[in-house]
Amino acid sequence: MTLIDKLNWRYATKRMNGTKVPQEKIDRILEAIRLAPTSFGLQAFKVIVVEDPALKERIFNEACQQPQIKEASHVLVFAASKNISAEQVNDYMNLIATTRDIPVDALAGFRAAFDGIVAGTPEQNFVWTARQAYIAFGVGIVAATNEDVDATPMEGFSTEALDKVLGLAEQNLGSTTILTLGYRDESNDNLVHAAKVRKSKSALFEFK
Amino acid sequence: MTLIDKLNWRYATKRMNGTKVPQEKIDRILEAIRLAPTSFGLQAFKVIVVEDPALKERIFNEACQQPQIKEASHVLVFAASKNISAEQVNDYMNLIATTRDIPVDALAGFRAAFDGIVAGTPEQNFVWTARQAYIAFGVGIVAATNEDVDATPMEGFSTEALDKVLGLAEQNLGSTTILTLGYRDESNDNLVHAAKVRKSKSALFEFK
Repeated sequence: MTLIDKLNWRYATKRMNGTKVPQEKIDRILEAIRLAPTSFGLQAFKVIVVEDPALKERIFNEACQQPQIKEASHVLVFAASKNISAEQVNDYMNLIATTRDIPVDALAGFRAAFDGIVAGTPEQNFVWTARQAYIAFGVGIVAATNEDVDATPMEGFSTEALDKVLGLAEQNLGSTTILTLGYRDESNDNLVHAAKVRKSKSALFEFK
Repeated sequence: MTLIDKLNWRYATKRMNGTKVPQEKIDRILEAIRLAPTSFGLQAFKVIVVEDPALKERIFNEACQQPQIKEASHVLVFAASKNISAEQVNDYMNLIATTRDIPVDALAGFRAAFDGIVAGTPEQNFVWTARQAYIAFGVGIVAATNEDVDATPMEGFSTEALDKVLGLAEQNLGSTTILTLGYRDESNDNLVHAAKVRKSKSALFEFK
């Protein structure tokens, strides 16, 4: 199947059959998420990967009791940085310097590009970091599809409650979205054979 | 190459060589973007696909004169709905009804889920629609990589100026991000051989 075939095959799976996704597939999906680009390369987000049934149950209760949470093999919670600190930026400069074997001083010009962001309000920062988390989320959706793994993108949950359940606030993180990974339950999901609804090419694109 | 190989091959290309990307590759990248999932499936965004050199020049001038804008084959501008109107939701209900051949009245329950969104402020709506555009943006980045096409994700531009250049405000749209498509200029891009900088698996993921 081509990537387009796979994107047509995928859908927001509402019922999953509980089958475990093999670890090597999970590893490749997470690696794709890790490789996703973000603004300045800062990766100001974290992904909580949940397999524990008791924790899934707690997430389920904060996510409108949608069954795919408990029926999924893995539940991924994408959480973005609530604020960007100077320390976080410095850590990133050190990571670049180490990875590329250059002195951190050589990054002074690039470091200065973050001054405005660090000076921004937490609200402004979170609008920005959440968008970056959504790039990784989009990459993760394609990576799952590429592994023939079903995935459900979900925003229907209480972010505040989930932050408490996962201890995110203490880490300066706020949950933004969920991706459940697993396999469709063909006999119980009434959307499994529903035609995909998308705007036409001429409605979605403007060519200039 | 596997998808992971391709994601390792890609990088934020800062210099492109002007070569045109074949139309069938562009078509598949746009089709992937069209198939990207969005919250409720609403697709509250539009992608402006620019090939015209004069228009690229104007975008270039609002985007810190970054050369890849002019050197790219195609410049994609992702613009999200500034506000969600009842009419926009009704159009979507009609699209579902037509695509799935069901009466629009059967969607009354689903339609009601949009009431809170329509009642939201434009600021709240735009935070949400921009996130959805970023899912499609992430999908587009992977799709380009899958076609061996270089792509540069860009936020470094004046959104207000670009909205004017592209006539977006009149369409209730606001620009969020740019993706240039083309081919790397290996001799002039000093990042072409730079090691990719990413957080380690243990720093980016938390396993529970």
